[in-house]
Amino acid sequence: MAPDPSDDRTRPQVRTGVPPPAAVNPHWQHKARTAPSLEDYVAGILAGDRVMLGRAITLVESKRSDHQQLGQQIIERCLPQAGPSVRIGITGVPGVGKSTFIEAFGLQLLAAGKRLAVLAVDPSSQRTKGSILGDKTRMPQLATAQEAFIRPSPAGDSLGGVARKSRETIMLCEAAGYDTILVETVGVGQSEVAVHAMVDFFLLLLIPGAGDELQGIKRGIVEMADLLAVNKADGDNIPRAKRAQAEYRNALHLFPPTPSGWTPPVVTCSALSGEGLGDIQTQLQQYLELVKNNGYFDQRRSEQATYWLHQAIEQQLGDLFLAHPSVKKAYPQLEQAVLRGDISAFQAAEQLITLFRQEK
Amino acid sequence: MAPDPSDDRTRPQVRTGVPPPAAVNPHWQHKARTAPSLEDYVAGILAGDRVMLGRAITLVESKRSDHQQLGQQIIERCLPQAGPSVRIGITGVPGVGKSTFIEAFGLQLLAAGKRLAVLAVDPSSQRTKGSILGDKTRMPQLATAQEAFIRPSPAGDSLGGVARKSRETIMLCEAAGYDTILVETVGVGQSEVAVHAMVDFFLLLLIPGAGDELQGIKRGIVEMADLLAVNKADGDNIPRAKRAQAEYRNALHLFPPTPSGWTPPVVTCSALSGEGLGDIQTQLQQYLELVKNNGYFDQRRSEQATYWLHQAIEQQLGDLFLAHPSVKKAYPQLEQAVLRGDISAFQAAEQLITLFRQEK
Repeated sequence: MAPDPSDDRTRPQVRTGVPPPAAVNPHWQHKARTAPSLEDYVAGILAGDRVMLGRAITLVESKRSDHQQLGQQIIERCLPQAGPSVRIGITGVPGVGKSTFIEAFGLQLLAAGKRLAVLAVDPSSQRTKGSILGDKTRMPQLATAQEAFIRPSPAGDSLGGVARKSRETIMLCEAAGYDTILVETVGVGQSEVAVHAMVDFFLLLLIPGAGDELQGIKRGIVEMADLLAVNKADGDNIPRAKRAQAEYRNALHLFPPTPSGWTPPVVTCSALSGEGLGDIQTQLQQYLELVKNNGYFDQRRSEQATYWLHQAIEQQLGDLFLAHPSVKKAYPQLEQAVLRGDISAFQAAEQLITLFRQEK
Repeated sequence: MAPDPSDDRTRPQVRTGVPPPAAVNPHWQHKARTAPSLEDYVAGILAGDRVMLGRAITLVESKRSDHQQLGQQIIERCLPQAGPSVRIGITGVPGVGKSTFIEAFGLQLLAAGKRLAVLAVDPSSQRTKGSILGDKTRMPQLATAQEAFIRPSPAGDSLGGVARKSRETIMLCEAAGYDTILVETVGVGQSEVAVHAMVDFFLLLLIPGAGDELQGIKRGIVEMADLLAVNKADGDNIPRAKRAQAEYRNALHLFPPTPSGWTPPVVTCSALSGEGLGDIQTQLQQYLELVKNNGYFDQRRSEQATYWLHQAIEQQLGDLFLAHPSVKKAYPQLEQAVLRGDISAFQAAEQLITLFRQEK
């Protein structure tokens, strides 16, 4: 059974969801045994109560419609209260050391006074995998830091569903006062595009190798990155890391200009030694200065908002469409006819839309 | 008034639409003054009659609903008869010499016995621009070649509309026996993705420069290319072309593997001298051999067919959605609310879908 932070019997031994004693409202402690109301959730989140935040996210992720409804109400109330934030996406091939990097980088951000949330987007996540406990052992120091909030990926039927819940989690974290959100992609070639569309800054982690540095990354991702970091640049690896850095710098030089006006830098770093992490923070600050001054920061967020609105409409419209009995019946054979080259896509779509418009 | 190939008074002096005398059916010549029937069109296209092909494409491109209806009927009849073909997309920055390249490359393909159609996808095209005459002066030799069929971009309200008509034009050309289709992107950063989704092989033309080779190409296009050709490698330019070739080879080496298993080569060529064009043809043949043997050719076409089916459904569903009076009324303010961060994309979409489901 999934751990319930409000239930002593199942609460994990590592207490990451407990707010500092001064912030605990005895009224809420008492209420932990009865279901909190919408007002309790909203007040708790806006006050930065991590128990309430965690429970609200659980509602949003739930498959139960009563949970989802309450979750949406909480979002509706909290969204306009979301504080300013910076959202950073982190992607990289398996084995590149993302967890170690996120921990080291995260601790640096905390030291710089940030309030940090660490999330993941994993379309293959299921409710029983990727447990809260698992994440805490990957990032043990960050997991016990007071000002950091860590949450594993929501589960979901589709990347679209997981992406939506992730974005709603971001909204709730921002309402709770977290000003820096790290979003990690999990899995190979599955969630990079979605994560890129929900962050302000996209960081690609690489390791120096024998030419197969990017095995497992989808084509197109390199050109999305706002910063490339060659990790594991320590000890004997340093010469190889520097060579990879030079190769990537030359390659990027050949690419078209970015819409932001920013030239993505290629740096080396070592999450283990901490080398280079300060430089990454500096680059991030310079990026933010540039794009906040030239308007691109707001433009990118607007484009993303529009993108997700269209995605949500297409998703819901598509569900409505495919649920229509006549459409559901005719779709497979029409799709096959298109694949065989018997009819055009346009004609198949026309026939399906005609069926959709009829009475059920 | 746009030239009508069936009308002597407006037919351009350069007679590109006239089939070889042996193929002209006197019955059709007589019928040129009265409107051809559906049977006339189908029979003509399947026999390779370029006048009929051109007129059918004009119907497909027309804004008139009677024309569109007849055009769709022609497609319905012709599509299952489409012969095997290879579709090649050609893109590149303005000034790279696409027209000269297409002419030179096209003439080589004709010399190799191919029946060649040359099309363009230009979302900014209007009916009065990009005249048939204009294209013929860009590619004068190809324009008068018997076995080549050249058609400018359809006009349209949107890239989606232009892309669909382009694809239907491809279908009709294939039914008329053209086995090699060149599709040129026109304009900057507008149609590359759509063209990439309708061809088997995507060729990126480059010129050697001072680091700004890719000005005007959208990010992500380099990674889509199946072959990169550094053009204008003649005379004094040859050293610079070779350097650019080496730089791109190194850069591509750093990219993830392609889904096809093919390693995109970087070649130099000169459309003016003809140097390197034979090599490009050889690379193309090797690519086709690889992907026809490993199944990727068919897989890519299936994926594209599915993609365009989804695009067509989304397009038509979207039109239906936005035409609903309540949706049309509520959409702008809900979109603004999402942009302001007052409600989430999901909630806005839910409200709009609810309105859509109501009686009008």
